[in-house]
Amino acid sequence: MRLLRLLLVASALACPLIAAAQSPADTTAILAMMNKSSDDWNKGDMDAFATAYKNSPDILFIGRKTSRGYDQMVATYKKSYATREAMGQLTFSQLEVQPLDAHFATVTGHFHLERKATGGGNADGYYLLVVEKTAAGWKIVRDDSTSLAPSQH
Amino acid sequence: MRLLRLLLVASALACPLIAAAQSPADTTAILAMMNKSSDDWNKGDMDAFATAYKNSPDILFIGRKTSRGYDQMVATYKKSYATREAMGQLTFSQLEVQPLDAHFATVTGHFHLERKATGGGNADGYYLLVVEKTAAGWKIVRDDSTSLAPSQH
Repeated sequence: MRLLRLLLVASALACPLIAAAQSPADTTAILAMMNKSSDDWNKGDMDAFATAYKNSPDILFIGRKTSRGYDQMVATYKKSYATREAMGQLTFSQLEVQPLDAHFATVTGHFHLERKATGGGNADGYYLLVVEKTAAGWKIVRDDSTSLAPSQH
Repeated sequence: MRLLRLLLVASALACPLIAAAQSPADTTAILAMMNKSSDDWNKGDMDAFATAYKNSPDILFIGRKTSRGYDQMVATYKKSYATREAMGQLTFSQLEVQPLDAHFATVTGHFHLERKATGGGNADGYYLLVVEKTAAGWKIVRDDSTSLAPSQH
């Protein structure tokens, strides 16, 4: 019995990654991360917004052009949304979190960007994100965002 | 020493999920799965094509409309590509596999559909897939495919 207990303890210590499936707390934490990112965007704070992504050279932002790695992604964001007016007001809707395993999940949702004509006008689209549970919390590691043409609304 | 060895063996046995990162064999297997799926498509065999996806109610196919679960996805594919002419000839390019952990990876790539005008004309786009290593091999569990309008080529 002592040996069995020892083995169980050893297994538990060695297996933090498979210790548990995702909990409701994970879903809550992922949604909080998403809410913070849109809040940061709406404050015009692109650097804070970018921290929703994992600071890694392996992340991908996929669209008509692909950004590879954190630095390139941040540079592309700053170039595409250079002014407060171009950033507009961002709203996420239809957010859905689906776990993959204890350390990864996907998030799907729609975005709406409310902007004046001088900022580029309104924009809408949808996305699939892969998020990872890192030491610094849940972070986006893949982002496939699709902008709908105005006629596709 | 005997105890240490025992603990290491117990850990290895208890941790199949974290036993190893993905191997080049995994990347090869994922690319083979992708190649088989386009081959099946180009034979006009939609049922074989669909087996690239995990037969699960949890899978998502995301686009302008979202299909949820294997059955709905297959039905949508069969409705959207009802004839051999509408299926056309499918080519994948710029395929890239990136591991997430031992059981999940992402695949990005572009698609080209060569079709006669009567089949709907050519189509192009890109995608982000999440694939899972299942007992039946690597299967797609999330698919965010974006069709480019002809003007966006």
